[in-house]
Amino acid sequence: MFEIAGKSREAGLRIDLARLRSDVEAVNAIGRIDGVPGINRVSFSDADMAGRRWLMDRLAEAGLDARIDAIGNVFGRWEAGSGPAVLAGSHLDTVPQGGPFDGTLGVCAALEAVRAMKAAGIAPARPVEIVCTADEEGRFGGMLGSQAICGEVGPDWIARAVDDSGQRLADALRAQGLDPAASVARDPAGIAVFLELHVEQGPVLERAGVSIGIADAVSGVFNWTVTLAGAANHSGTTPMPGRRDAFRGLADFGARIPAILEAAGGADSRLTVGKVALSPNFPHSVAGEATFSVIGRDVEEAVMRSLAEACRDELGAAAARHGLGLDIAEQGWLPPTRLDGAVARRLMDICATCGMDAMTMSSGAGHDAQTFARHCPAGLIFVPSVGGVSHSPAEWTEWPDIERGATLLARAVAAFATDPA
Amino acid sequence: MFEIAGKSREAGLRIDLARLRSDVEAVNAIGRIDGVPGINRVSFSDADMAGRRWLMDRLAEAGLDARIDAIGNVFGRWEAGSGPAVLAGSHLDTVPQGGPFDGTLGVCAALEAVRAMKAAGIAPARPVEIVCTADEEGRFGGMLGSQAICGEVGPDWIARAVDDSGQRLADALRAQGLDPAASVARDPAGIAVFLELHVEQGPVLERAGVSIGIADAVSGVFNWTVTLAGAANHSGTTPMPGRRDAFRGLADFGARIPAILEAAGGADSRLTVGKVALSPNFPHSVAGEATFSVIGRDVEEAVMRSLAEACRDELGAAAARHGLGLDIAEQGWLPPTRLDGAVARRLMDICATCGMDAMTMSSGAGHDAQTFARHCPAGLIFVPSVGGVSHSPAEWTEWPDIERGATLLARAVAAFATDPA
Repeated sequence: MFEIAGKSREAGLRIDLARLRSDVEAVNAIGRIDGVPGINRVSFSDADMAGRRWLMDRLAEAGLDARIDAIGNVFGRWEAGSGPAVLAGSHLDTVPQGGPFDGTLGVCAALEAVRAMKAAGIAPARPVEIVCTADEEGRFGGMLGSQAICGEVGPDWIARAVDDSGQRLADALRAQGLDPAASVARDPAGIAVFLELHVEQGPVLERAGVSIGIADAVSGVFNWTVTLAGAANHSGTTPMPGRRDAFRGLADFGARIPAILEAAGGADSRLTVGKVALSPNFPHSVAGEATFSVIGRDVEEAVMRSLAEACRDELGAAAARHGLGLDIAEQGWLPPTRLDGAVARRLMDICATCGMDAMTMSSGAGHDAQTFARHCPAGLIFVPSVGGVSHSPAEWTEWPDIERGATLLARAVAAFATDPA
Repeated sequence: MFEIAGKSREAGLRIDLARLRSDVEAVNAIGRIDGVPGINRVSFSDADMAGRRWLMDRLAEAGLDARIDAIGNVFGRWEAGSGPAVLAGSHLDTVPQGGPFDGTLGVCAALEAVRAMKAAGIAPARPVEIVCTADEEGRFGGMLGSQAICGEVGPDWIARAVDDSGQRLADALRAQGLDPAASVARDPAGIAVFLELHVEQGPVLERAGVSIGIADAVSGVFNWTVTLAGAANHSGTTPMPGRRDAFRGLADFGARIPAILEAAGGADSRLTVGKVALSPNFPHSVAGEATFSVIGRDVEEAVMRSLAEACRDELGAAAARHGLGLDIAEQGWLPPTRLDGAVARRLMDICATCGMDAMTMSSGAGHDAQTFARHCPAGLIFVPSVGGVSHSPAEWTEWPDIERGATLLARAVAAFATDPA
């Protein structure tokens, strides 16, 4: 499989799937809770820290300099050659009741890439470093590990960060012997490229019947909380004309989602109302208030802006039609990130060289690669998610797809490490 | 006001508004809770029972035979003449944080009617009886007092009835010294007519600028719990085509409410989605499930049936469009009730005679009169609710409107009691 006759050792590099699988299964034995499905290594929990210690042991076994920084990022550095390092990795923390591969695959595959390179006797021209970031899943509202490495957040941000239950990040770090006051930022000039293998978490590759996706962009996202305010009234005594029914405003907006996308969106646009609260939320009462989320995404910020404008127009029209007050609270506006074109092309070339079916695509979810991409070249490789399912115990990727993805990652790490291109 | 020169004492009967107002205020001093707005005489609470004891004292003071039956219905009978009795009344129990007039007005106005008749020296040709029903607000799921009086429910039903918090009706009755095992049914042949004055609880009279409404029908109602089942997915990684978004199905149905009413409904039709629950109800997740109420009402059962059919069609179309499973659980189907045409005409005639502006209308809410109407002639008089507001501390009716309504009730009781017509 993926043999390239007469090519360099890097181009023909093979990984040991059994060893990779055994690593994935070993780390996923950590974070099992009796009676709770899935993997539970929530950021800075004891299980999360146990996962990181497990990784440090594996990194040391592989002959790497293993270290954990002040906020829990784990690194395994292969000090070789000179110049900026090739970084590869992902994260080991999970959402509650998470799946076996989200983050975990990228960390274990990076470890396997280094072992495969060593086994093949490949001598890197520059350092190679495995990275396992802290709190990628955003328990504390950001993408803490990669953002801290890249200098986007520091002790001031950490001092303010609180999770949904009100626990302070600083306390969570201290409880695990970490140090919220230390800076862990690294000079981006020391990073040649960051490479990440991740499960797609969506259905695009599966539907296309393609095993490898190379991300060229990560969607931006706007996050609104919308409130429509009408008048709560008795559902029997209040005639239909003159009702100020907040549910009807919400429904009218929801039914216009296809029209909004048609007028203002593109193939990568996403528009979702996922959370709704009516008040008084009683069957026999006309809804006096509807509060709901509107999440819009696209890979082009101009398209995001036109989607947002179209949403405002439709919300305004629905509010006017039903005599409702309208409030739009923008919780966040995260611009899209373009991933490095040269890195993506090199990844596609490697796929072509070894006969792997691959396609470029955008990422609808956020990943560590997107943080790094704002500071250094970064590449993001996807493998298919069965049924597009993720953030669920049912998340799955077939082992042959994992073998292809991990092989690509290993060959890419070897290629970037031996030939700066 | 409302003087009819040269007419009978019944036709010119006047009530004492100050006395009526003082009664309303006195009973509404019962059921005040520190820090809780509105009137709180929830069925079978101590406050509810205190209100009933207050009424029994007033009935006795007015020279009536006052009694409370085994489930808390209070009666004050003026034993006079012969034949079936003229009943007038309503209820004193309230919803939590209720308003000052819902039910209370009809009880106090019936008492005032009898006092006014006695003061005017009117001698009834038949008995007159004031009725204050138990649990009209349906804490235990029905309209207990009037249904028990009319023999629609009895000890078997009472033994099964439970409130929203799981408390058993039988226990609530026993705790107040009442008797869940006794039958309180009366022979409908002993009731000549049941007359009820009530606040409209809707905006129809206020919008029409009319002081008196005479109900000719009470809407029937169907009550559905609908579940649309799709697939919960990541809002970013899941492309719009192929989503099975339960919210979108709900929104498409909601937006079709005007079309459903246009095709299948009439002027008295009401269609309301008042309660919605999405799952997982998270902004970044496509809704995997939407569960919501659909309440349909009309005064014609045939129209109710066509509304229900149109709702099924639209729900089916929305489910098909979004690849959703559809479940419709019918929680109840209550047919409409026609009120007695002869009684309504006589009430309209009395209004005409004394120059009161009145209109016939349907009732969108349920009332004791509707229960009685299934067993004996019944009449239901509405006075305007300011802003159509009810079941709220903000419920209000202007005193001049109350004077007109109470005067009409008194003249009607006197007319039916002296002239069986």
